[in-house]
Amino acid sequence: MVPKKNQFRNRDIPAEVLVEGIFKGDKALLAKAITLLESTRPDHFEKANSVIEKCLSKPNSSIRLGITGVPGVGKSSFIEVLGSLLTSLGKKVAVLAVDPTSSLSKGSILGDKTRMQSLSKDLNAFIRPSPSGSSLGGVARKTRESIILCEAAGYDVILVETVGVGQSETAVHSMVDFFLLLKLSGAGDELQGIKRGIMEMADAIAINKADGSNLERAKLAVVEFTRALHLYPPKENGWTPKVMQCSASENTGIREIWEMVEDFVAHNKESGHFDQKRKTQNKNWFLQTVDEHLKLFFHQKKTFVEAQDKMLRAIDENKISPFYAAKMLLDDVTKEL
Amino acid sequence: MVPKKNQFRNRDIPAEVLVEGIFKGDKALLAKAITLLESTRPDHFEKANSVIEKCLSKPNSSIRLGITGVPGVGKSSFIEVLGSLLTSLGKKVAVLAVDPTSSLSKGSILGDKTRMQSLSKDLNAFIRPSPSGSSLGGVARKTRESIILCEAAGYDVILVETVGVGQSETAVHSMVDFFLLLKLSGAGDELQGIKRGIMEMADAIAINKADGSNLERAKLAVVEFTRALHLYPPKENGWTPKVMQCSASENTGIREIWEMVEDFVAHNKESGHFDQKRKTQNKNWFLQTVDEHLKLFFHQKKTFVEAQDKMLRAIDENKISPFYAAKMLLDDVTKEL
Repeated sequence: MVPKKNQFRNRDIPAEVLVEGIFKGDKALLAKAITLLESTRPDHFEKANSVIEKCLSKPNSSIRLGITGVPGVGKSSFIEVLGSLLTSLGKKVAVLAVDPTSSLSKGSILGDKTRMQSLSKDLNAFIRPSPSGSSLGGVARKTRESIILCEAAGYDVILVETVGVGQSETAVHSMVDFFLLLKLSGAGDELQGIKRGIMEMADAIAINKADGSNLERAKLAVVEFTRALHLYPPKENGWTPKVMQCSASENTGIREIWEMVEDFVAHNKESGHFDQKRKTQNKNWFLQTVDEHLKLFFHQKKTFVEAQDKMLRAIDENKISPFYAAKMLLDDVTKEL
Repeated sequence: MVPKKNQFRNRDIPAEVLVEGIFKGDKALLAKAITLLESTRPDHFEKANSVIEKCLSKPNSSIRLGITGVPGVGKSSFIEVLGSLLTSLGKKVAVLAVDPTSSLSKGSILGDKTRMQSLSKDLNAFIRPSPSGSSLGGVARKTRESIILCEAAGYDVILVETVGVGQSETAVHSMVDFFLLLKLSGAGDELQGIKRGIMEMADAIAINKADGSNLERAKLAVVEFTRALHLYPPKENGWTPKVMQCSASENTGIREIWEMVEDFVAHNKESGHFDQKRKTQNKNWFLQTVDEHLKLFFHQKKTFVEAQDKMLRAIDENKISPFYAAKMLLDDVTKEL
């Protein structure tokens, strides 16, 4: 018999209790399991692994939707409205985030649940801020693992929010089925500030805040972006990225965007590109996990840590260059391999 | 006798010829040595290591200055004017860059030397675009190694440019003595768009384009930022970050900024904080190098690569989850350790 959760302190809950709770859709245990996999303690690591493995075994047919855009574009409001639409359609929605700046700025996205007031109270929604971490790779890995847990908990749509800066978008793109770029209509300079890379990654661009006096400009932006996207070669899956307009504050255009995502998923499932993309993502995930775990393995090895500390002291005493110290340590560690 | 450089094709130049060339300040050989350390070929890696080690042994008293700011703030013009000032003062100047987006956008900063027309023709200046790389860590490591080579080649001031996004600023901050943030004066919203993290890292903020009709707004921005910086606790080295104004196009304020940097360096050398910071940076560099090299070691090991390929095929055939595959591979690799 599996013991009840209240018998345990937070991190002492056994893996099987966490898994059972996740399978039942217990939000509190899902949250605790995610906290566990965000932990850096070696024993937590082992336990988190066993939870993830079990969660991976549970079949699901989730849709993973990545949402990016610069600060101020209205990501939170968009997710609030889209999330509420989805739960009204009977779907369970999880909202996760990848924010590489959060380690410095202490959580700039999703940190404040009050920004998604109605969604955070929705029984069929689960909101989790970006994990903290020393590297984007670490943050991304934890979010990817959280996706698995949320799917095992029965969430049909996983929304992954990221800030519109640098490599975090690439990281999120590598873990979702559909990647949506939110933009504002500006004063004719829409295309200037946009990076080539993000245009290539986006499956759709949504011009947000298309309301009031912005409406006409938004329509122009749709035309302009559509033209710009036609300059790119068609994607491998035959999909031509769409450009749409919406207003989170007036709740217009959001339903159309979701229908487009469903259309995309249906077409790609039929053509086999949906599974193909997930397989490719899995292979990349595997390669990244191997690298992360290799590193972790050595950093938990006492002889390695001691040799490393010795080198650190020598560097501090100006007795050795950092480069040569690294070489010596590595030569020592790998000489028997 | 060391053979002449023209006897060799680009990457066949022996390490000792490269080092001799670097020590003599030969720009072409310096450039070739940097290309060598950016290479991913295992034999190049060994050779690059030996070049760096020799370069580290040459004493120098360089100043490493990091410069960041969002696109459009005028980093290139600023560097052009500052660099020319420094060479006019008899200094040799190297300009390097860390651009994590360059792998996607094919080099958005320093990619185009025409943006620094006069500096790129200056005999006492050396300009090198951002290395490409799959990870920010890799890009940062190569730039850090390039700094060593430039210093051995006699460059007195190393300017390291980076884009104002996410973790690249942290990476550059970790390799320079002084970190300068370039800003524009806006319409009173100066403080909104600025991240807390970057304010904490900056040793000074320079309000650029302080000219013409912008001048008054720039003065206001100086006051506003000075006030904002006073909200932060003083830095460990006792330095209070300065806020200054400048105009690269009118060449005003740049000399004052350089004098401030020299003042900072003099004070910190006297107090010992200069050496202390470099030591801390060296220790972090060592730790990062160890991680990079560990990864490299395994990826060059035939048995490891073969086992990894086998797992990749199994993932492709849906026979194993990426997570479990990683665990199995790691267990196999590390069982004898």
